Amino acid sequence: MTDRDERRRTVADVGEFGLIERLTSRLGPPRPDLFLGIGDDVAAIALDAQRLLLVTCDVQVAGTHFVTARCDPGRLGRKVAAINLSDIAAAGGIPTHFVSSLVLPPDTDLAFVEALYDGLGAEARRWGADVVGGNVSRGPILVVDVTLFGETTRGELLRRDGARPGDSLVVTGRLGAAAAGLHRTLHPELAVAPGVEREALAAFETPTPRLREARALVEIGGVSAAIDLSDGLLADLGHVCDRSGVGVSLRSRSIPIHRAAVALAPGASVDALDWALRGGEDYELLFTAPPGRTDDLVRGVIERTGTPATVIGEIVAPARGRTMELPDGERRPLESEGWRHF
Amino acid sequence: MTDRDERRRTVADVGEFGLIERLTSRLGPPRPDLFLGIGDDVAAIALDAQRLLLVTCDVQVAGTHFVTARCDPGRLGRKVAAINLSDIAAAGGIPTHFVSSLVLPPDTDLAFVEALYDGLGAEARRWGADVVGGNVSRGPILVVDVTLFGETTRGELLRRDGARPGDSLVVTGRLGAAAAGLHRTLHPELAVAPGVEREALAAFETPTPRLREARALVEIGGVSAAIDLSDGLLADLGHVCDRSGVGVSLRSRSIPIHRAAVALAPGASVDALDWALRGGEDYELLFTAPPGRTDDLVRGVIERTGTPATVIGEIVAPARGRTMELPDGERRPLESEGWRHF
Repeated sequence: MTDRDERRRTVADVGEFGLIERLTSRLGPPRPDLFLGIGDDVAAIALDAQRLLLVTCDVQVAGTHFVTARCDPGRLGRKVAAINLSDIAAAGGIPTHFVSSLVLPPDTDLAFVEALYDGLGAEARRWGADVVGGNVSRGPILVVDVTLFGETTRGELLRRDGARPGDSLVVTGRLGAAAAGLHRTLHPELAVAPGVEREALAAFETPTPRLREARALVEIGGVSAAIDLSDGLLADLGHVCDRSGVGVSLRSRSIPIHRAAVALAPGASVDALDWALRGGEDYELLFTAPPGRTDDLVRGVIERTGTPATVIGEIVAPARGRTMELPDGERRPLESEGWRHF
Repeated sequence: MTDRDERRRTVADVGEFGLIERLTSRLGPPRPDLFLGIGDDVAAIALDAQRLLLVTCDVQVAGTHFVTARCDPGRLGRKVAAINLSDIAAAGGIPTHFVSSLVLPPDTDLAFVEALYDGLGAEARRWGADVVGGNVSRGPILVVDVTLFGETTRGELLRRDGARPGDSLVVTGRLGAAAAGLHRTLHPELAVAPGVEREALAAFETPTPRLREARALVEIGGVSAAIDLSDGLLADLGHVCDRSGVGVSLRSRSIPIHRAAVALAPGASVDALDWALRGGEDYELLFTAPPGRTDDLVRGVIERTGTPATVIGEIVAPARGRTMELPDGERRPLESEGWRHF
């Protein structure tokens, strides 16, 4: 490829993760107080010998993540808080403060912005995090960008890069409901039972960050790696494997599929397992732990929070690759396909 | 006004500061560790009995703050870093880390994003701040949102609300150059001497955050209030008066006008003083200090940094209002008009 071609490449050509990799490669050596940098759910800055400041940011953009005219502003506010809170959960942290940056078209209804802000604040405060500042700016489309802080200690930080061969792979909750909710949003004409519809839309529009579950894991102890499921099980599992330098053996029959996905998938002509594997935005926790710690963790999460935790496979040596065992015993290579921004 | 009318009001109807006030009024009581909240240049979170974590965020939006096709991406990156660094300067802090959130159209040139990121990183690192994370997302327009952290102590924090009657009012540098640069950008057809053009464009496109000047002020001691000039001298002075509950007497003949503003104003059919008062984006520091400390501060800033500092008026009792003394001795009420986002 010539320099000329290189200059003309766009962000769509390299994709979200390609872009992040390229930008990250341009950085110099980090400050010595950076404990955990780009490539995990959060950044962790050392405040002293023990305490870590956790930082994460995530955005919702009109036209990309929601349609302004059709969205409930309170739920949008809750969601942008929740997706940031979920990153703090993945780090095993306690959320503390946030700043919000709003880009608003001048003709945005005041009531819309207030409901959005109320939703954002209510969801954050529900988990102990308080707004400390922000910014409003004019722009042609609505953008809600949140930077959330949290705290933990060096000993309690959960990160993506600690999975080791032999570890069990565990997921909280049940998967695929957010994809079912997205499908429902796009196809309001489909006939769906009200209970199932409610669960699917709630999963998609107002996900619950797994902060209690994460704190239970930290308190029980023994987690070797953790991530939250934003891009989809396969994609996020891929991040853990990449960062930890390991392979994985997933068991398809063990994957807990949400009943809303089971109910809505046939009408969408998809396999509910596919939504569970690739749908994204479930915001459950995926974690690994040595076999000797797994039972305590799985039982402990259920007992302390009521949320199920399910062993769905095991971490293997990198040479064994990334595979999924199908119900008929066949073993298929995994493709880490999840949500891509570009 | 009926509920129905109220529901239909837009953000343009209440304006930037009206919107911030309305959103802020909806918040509950802050966490006890919030030392300084919404309404100042930064938020300050208590890390322990002494240390404060400073947080600020500011955004650049395509079509509002710049035109993508005409902008130099490296300079845009530097500017978004600088406007955030300027807020840390206004608090007397030391910048430490930042996160960047990029919203990008898929057809954005990779080279453009890389140059933007390089500019952002270079300007931040120049002042000791390092990127710790970020986010990229697809969207219809380019948005660069930065959240910057800094540190200081309770004793050294500069804030907007400490101005007292009798204090001197001081500004660093010279004003109006950024407005001249903006005018030059919008009117490339005008004949301008190259040296003046360079200074005007540099002030507008790549402002220098007054971090060294702010640290000098903190080390010398005695500053009662401080703010950075982003919205324009009159508007930002208004913020200080609002927050401090004081009036002000400004002397027009003392206001240091940048030579680029003097040179370009006639061609724009404006008074250069008007650019200095209302232009915005000069990112100089405006501060107040008791008369007994003013000489030390003014002399100290010049000696330590080479940047001039000029006494431009004094803080008065609120009952005396906010006025400006004109060269002919006439005293005119100030209107706090600066840049408004809506």
